[in-house]
Amino acid sequence: MTAPAPAETISKIGVAVFPGFELLDTFGPLEALYGVSGAHKVDLYVVAATLDPVYSGTSNPMMNKAGSHFGVSVVPTHTHETVPDLDVLLVPGGIGVIEETAKPTVEFVKKTYPKLKYLITVCNGASIPAAAGVLDGKRATTNKAAWKAATSAGPNVNWVKTARYVVDGNCWTSAGVSAGIDVTLAWISKVYGEGLARMLANGMEYEWRDDPNWDPFAYMFGDGEFLNA
Amino acid sequence: MTAPAPAETISKIGVAVFPGFELLDTFGPLEALYGVSGAHKVDLYVVAATLDPVYSGTSNPMMNKAGSHFGVSVVPTHTHETVPDLDVLLVPGGIGVIEETAKPTVEFVKKTYPKLKYLITVCNGASIPAAAGVLDGKRATTNKAAWKAATSAGPNVNWVKTARYVVDGNCWTSAGVSAGIDVTLAWISKVYGEGLARMLANGMEYEWRDDPNWDPFAYMFGDGEFLNA
Repeated sequence: MTAPAPAETISKIGVAVFPGFELLDTFGPLEALYGVSGAHKVDLYVVAATLDPVYSGTSNPMMNKAGSHFGVSVVPTHTHETVPDLDVLLVPGGIGVIEETAKPTVEFVKKTYPKLKYLITVCNGASIPAAAGVLDGKRATTNKAAWKAATSAGPNVNWVKTARYVVDGNCWTSAGVSAGIDVTLAWISKVYGEGLARMLANGMEYEWRDDPNWDPFAYMFGDGEFLNA
Repeated sequence: MTAPAPAETISKIGVAVFPGFELLDTFGPLEALYGVSGAHKVDLYVVAATLDPVYSGTSNPMMNKAGSHFGVSVVPTHTHETVPDLDVLLVPGGIGVIEETAKPTVEFVKKTYPKLKYLITVCNGASIPAAAGVLDGKRATTNKAAWKAATSAGPNVNWVKTARYVVDGNCWTSAGVSAGIDVTLAWISKVYGEGLARMLANGMEYEWRDDPNWDPFAYMFGDGEFLNA
């Protein structure tokens, strides 16, 4: 099967990483986009405050009561200053979003958003563009288990509680963690056609939740104070 | 909710990485295990042939016809020689499995398997212990889109075609890519109890496929020569 030519050229995709970024938020979407990169020339830019490796783990007792050392360090390819203009920026969530060390990423999103074709967020990664003001007046969604905390960063955002993902303009925001795969497949479907998106989902042996309204987790977590219980 | 004390102590989990490792194979399972590490003291060891960063991308035209540069480099914490004895080893798949550069990982699995409590493989990662002889006489599964290639590494393995994951002794093997999340949640359920596994799946907003026989992809890909088409 040959994918249709995309309606627009996407050649530079960036992912913003910061200490305590969530692994599946980041690498679920990148898995799907890696599939795109096999058929269409597109390069990945791993962007952070500095070029030092960025560790996904945390010592924050909210996520790590046991004192474990459990994380992976990834190597940025560019800093917030050196990265070229991107077509797409992926912003994952994670415990690091609520740490002081996420501040430079908020500034980066504020600065780079006007030059992006698309912004994709996963989980409480939405708090970062929300804090940057980028989502003001837009519809967006985020993590359901930490709904109150994640939405508090954006008092002027029209948060949508029951949604696997939400598209408003060029902002594609998804629910928690694994929902990042679904929003990314939906984005691929929009830009490259459903055929490629479905082929990639099948190749990942992934049951793509292509209905943006599918969301048992909004109900499951109620008022979303699960993580503060 | 407090998880029951595990029936056995798991304190060291390793992940074997090699050039061209698959992102979701690796980080789906690690996302679930990161959840475990919040409640139980367990450390992660990122193991490779050397301490140089290991790149997930590939220039192999089977996966990259477009000449894209699309991958992430992760930093190993230990080499095959320096890693302490592990309780659990996770082996992801990826295009790198069929490259010459996967050979040291085969040797590492052969050497370390007798000391493991559990081996978990994802996708064509099963080809690595299969090539090491570790799966001989055991039931196992692997990627469905590349079934013929992935199973060819283990002529004495009892490959199970229609399976999301297979457990035989201490070997937990899963189908392609996203199936790694399901086998890992099943393993967590066995070791730590279903309560913790289900809590983690919900926190990941992931619809856990807890039935090892659920597998639409075996049918979808037929004889599994999809990737060679």
